[in-house]
Amino acid sequence: MPESDLSDVYRRYIACLNAQDWPALGQFVATNVSHNDREIGLSGYRAMLEQDFDDIPDLHFNIELLISDAPYVASRLAFDCAPRAKFLGLNIDGKRVSFAENVFYEFRARKIVRVWSVIDKAAIEQQLHA
Amino acid sequence: MPESDLSDVYRRYIACLNAQDWPALGQFVATNVSHNDREIGLSGYRAMLEQDFDDIPDLHFNIELLISDAPYVASRLAFDCAPRAKFLGLNIDGKRVSFAENVFYEFRARKIVRVWSVIDKAAIEQQLHA
Repeated sequence: MPESDLSDVYRRYIACLNAQDWPALGQFVATNVSHNDREIGLSGYRAMLEQDFDDIPDLHFNIELLISDAPYVASRLAFDCAPRAKFLGLNIDGKRVSFAENVFYEFRARKIVRVWSVIDKAAIEQQLHA
Repeated sequence: MPESDLSDVYRRYIACLNAQDWPALGQFVATNVSHNDREIGLSGYRAMLEQDFDDIPDLHFNIELLISDAPYVASRLAFDCAPRAKFLGLNIDGKRVSFAENVFYEFRARKIVRVWSVIDKAAIEQQLHA
């Protein structure tokens, strides 16, 4: 599969998240998907995302940097949003914060099977204490 | 430049860090390097790494996942070490912790010019509170 294909699939996956089009999520995410080495499955993955949108009503995924090396994709996602209460254990209480997520994905048959994500919690803490 | 070349350069860069071979650092890092959008330059980059090894005497960089898409490299680094006092603002006090860093690099003329790093601070906090 050409690498451009995997980037295209990934961009459609991000569009699916931003549209909160949960019935379509299974087109991009495998039924046995794992997240940070924990197998949560497609239903757990969907529940995690739905919870994120509940916690952060204005959540939007912005791809800042996308690199593709099949079967892997790495993406730096940029967020600028206002979590309404707690997020990552921090009391945000509706304050607007900007932060990045550096995340790796392994694909199999054009679907995400493994995700390794790190969110820049320290950057959020700095903004809360500024 | 073939992508395998960039992976090779990157592996030699990590070997340089693990050897603490600071005089060789300039072979891999550009004089005007930036880290998380802050231009710290080669001397600032070296000072940051030397400080890391001061804070964490048994620091060792392990490449867990390396993906290359010229001019970019993305790497998931795994650490298992015992920071002797504070690290990322947390009181570690010699406790052994395991954590990951998801990091992106932009290369120019085979040298690192931009780095976007996120360390999994939340994972360290969980181990401290366990």
